[in-house]
Amino acid sequence: MKKFELFSHRCLKKLRLDAVLFNSSEFLPSVNLRYLSGFTGSDASILLTGSEHHLFTDGRYKTQARQECPDFEIHVVRRKLDSIRSVMKRLQIRRLGLEAPRISHELATKLGRKVPDVQLVSLGRQFLDSLRIKKTPQEKSILQRAAEIASHSCEELLSSSLLGKTERQVAEKLEALFRANGAQGVAFETLVAAAERSALPHARPTDKVIEPGNFVLIDFGCTYAGYHSDETVTGVAGSPTGEQEKLHAVVYEAHMRAIDALKVGVGVKEVDSAARNVMMNAGLGKYFLHGLGHGVGLEIHEPPHLSPLGKGVIEDGMVFTIEPGVYVEGVGGVRLESLVYMDKTGPEVLSRMSKKLLTIG
Amino acid sequence: MKKFELFSHRCLKKLRLDAVLFNSSEFLPSVNLRYLSGFTGSDASILLTGSEHHLFTDGRYKTQARQECPDFEIHVVRRKLDSIRSVMKRLQIRRLGLEAPRISHELATKLGRKVPDVQLVSLGRQFLDSLRIKKTPQEKSILQRAAEIASHSCEELLSSSLLGKTERQVAEKLEALFRANGAQGVAFETLVAAAERSALPHARPTDKVIEPGNFVLIDFGCTYAGYHSDETVTGVAGSPTGEQEKLHAVVYEAHMRAIDALKVGVGVKEVDSAARNVMMNAGLGKYFLHGLGHGVGLEIHEPPHLSPLGKGVIEDGMVFTIEPGVYVEGVGGVRLESLVYMDKTGPEVLSRMSKKLLTIG
Repeated sequence: MKKFELFSHRCLKKLRLDAVLFNSSEFLPSVNLRYLSGFTGSDASILLTGSEHHLFTDGRYKTQARQECPDFEIHVVRRKLDSIRSVMKRLQIRRLGLEAPRISHELATKLGRKVPDVQLVSLGRQFLDSLRIKKTPQEKSILQRAAEIASHSCEELLSSSLLGKTERQVAEKLEALFRANGAQGVAFETLVAAAERSALPHARPTDKVIEPGNFVLIDFGCTYAGYHSDETVTGVAGSPTGEQEKLHAVVYEAHMRAIDALKVGVGVKEVDSAARNVMMNAGLGKYFLHGLGHGVGLEIHEPPHLSPLGKGVIEDGMVFTIEPGVYVEGVGGVRLESLVYMDKTGPEVLSRMSKKLLTIG
Repeated sequence: MKKFELFSHRCLKKLRLDAVLFNSSEFLPSVNLRYLSGFTGSDASILLTGSEHHLFTDGRYKTQARQECPDFEIHVVRRKLDSIRSVMKRLQIRRLGLEAPRISHELATKLGRKVPDVQLVSLGRQFLDSLRIKKTPQEKSILQRAAEIASHSCEELLSSSLLGKTERQVAEKLEALFRANGAQGVAFETLVAAAERSALPHARPTDKVIEPGNFVLIDFGCTYAGYHSDETVTGVAGSPTGEQEKLHAVVYEAHMRAIDALKVGVGVKEVDSAARNVMMNAGLGKYFLHGLGHGVGLEIHEPPHLSPLGKGVIEDGMVFTIEPGVYVEGVGGVRLESLVYMDKTGPEVLSRMSKKLLTIG
């Protein structure tokens, strides 16, 4: 079954819709439009009914749309809304779902004026994005490749000394290695945080120089064929102190307990607890400032959300991070993050780097 | 007069609005919100009346918003729409302008439900973006710095040989030089097109190797303090043929005639014609496939649009590109692009590289 057929099945019937409309523009791209149609250009709309699949774009994308979207009827048009209206009229669409979070108010208003008799129903992000939650085998192998390129690049980075380099220099070198190793780009701004700056969960790299004894936290990901990877390692430049070793040991234990807890059907809350309990028992619970993990795919953050307030259960086909961390102001922080694929038989860790306390040369 | 005061003056009175609302989210950032408030974070709304300036954001941006937006009353809130509603109620807002192209339909719908008595007026992109068309002296100096970093980086690139390198390798090296020379990032994907690929106006770099006799077209720009630069040079690897020299000479003449035509008060159409006439007289008019230029600032493409259908006149304070080009399928293409600041007394070219036919070593 094709992705858009599955989607129609789940979405149109559930909400009693005749059709759903998605739109991508340069300003507001729709990752769901890409997912459902395969179209990677910047300007298009798709209209899906239970049985028909239309894509509307302009002359620039004529060839590309035909190549990327063999299952869609391609309309190469100048006045997109007029063309959408006439297809909707022919199909007698009465109730149309809109991807409201990724359609501008301007476009929705113009469309509403074009089709005043059609009832427009706003669909929420959470609902739409959850339709991408289970990855196909093809998606899994792309995510695996992204994770491997990123891990391999970070290993290459750490094979030469980081001492005396700035956080920013280290981040730029890692990003250059991603490309050299076949990545499409960078999944998010690479975080490199040295010494007590590692206690800031989202510290952007600065001109701070890495010195002996510093904690060094590196949170990194690349993109490959549109998909993202996400991994974090922590090390110490030179010999770690007892305190550094203790912080790491607790987070390492939390990371491993969370992976042990992964089973199809287990609540995402329970997986979060498996890690959080380790932190609390070690007296570090109050320093674990965020949820345990998040889904990764065409977006760097997508469902499922593994947190104390998370809903739902672990399903086979999901890809998500496991990333416990502690952040002690003035001392430093440790985060250990792996990208995990959930197979029917158990978790498969896609990230390739060791989560032991690294020795940074 | 502050930017947002000018804006209120032009926008609120003209459209008889009591206030205007802008919103930035990670998915749909508003460059106008940034322009008016100075806020560079990813999640905030601003509400402007003639006399009050409110910014609503969450706890993550508390310190940043206070630092970046000293003229705004900062509301650090959990339920943004509720806070906006209560400020609107106190100010008795009846007609509210929305930046409809950069507000999602989801958000506009939720807001409409919160304030059912308020008339929501959609403002168009063209109108809003044109409010940024005249650059302040501070903006000009930032744009100048961006242009200088990019030109200097490209000169550095060309100081060593490109022969035997791939388009992709050249593009990556130039992007690394941007950062090494102080740029914030890349303004758009750097285009490097060799041989007959130079005839594709937007060819993304490939693994094609640069060989003797090839045309090499490089279209590049960096970002600095949020602003963009944009420049294109064309050269030949080794000795040019007579045909290559002729194509270049015509485009060079068109580029120079366009700059000569720049005067405050001249129609943008006429500036386009000054270049297009040179092409037509040389029998190359049909190969000039796009408009002459576009405004550059916080966005890489913004008003004014210099084209045969362009509206309006050249005003002092504008910053835009002059980029005539010819694209002959199977032969190759030449584009010569400079970033220009329009001073009261005449044009000032911000790009630093020569537009002569470059010899690529």
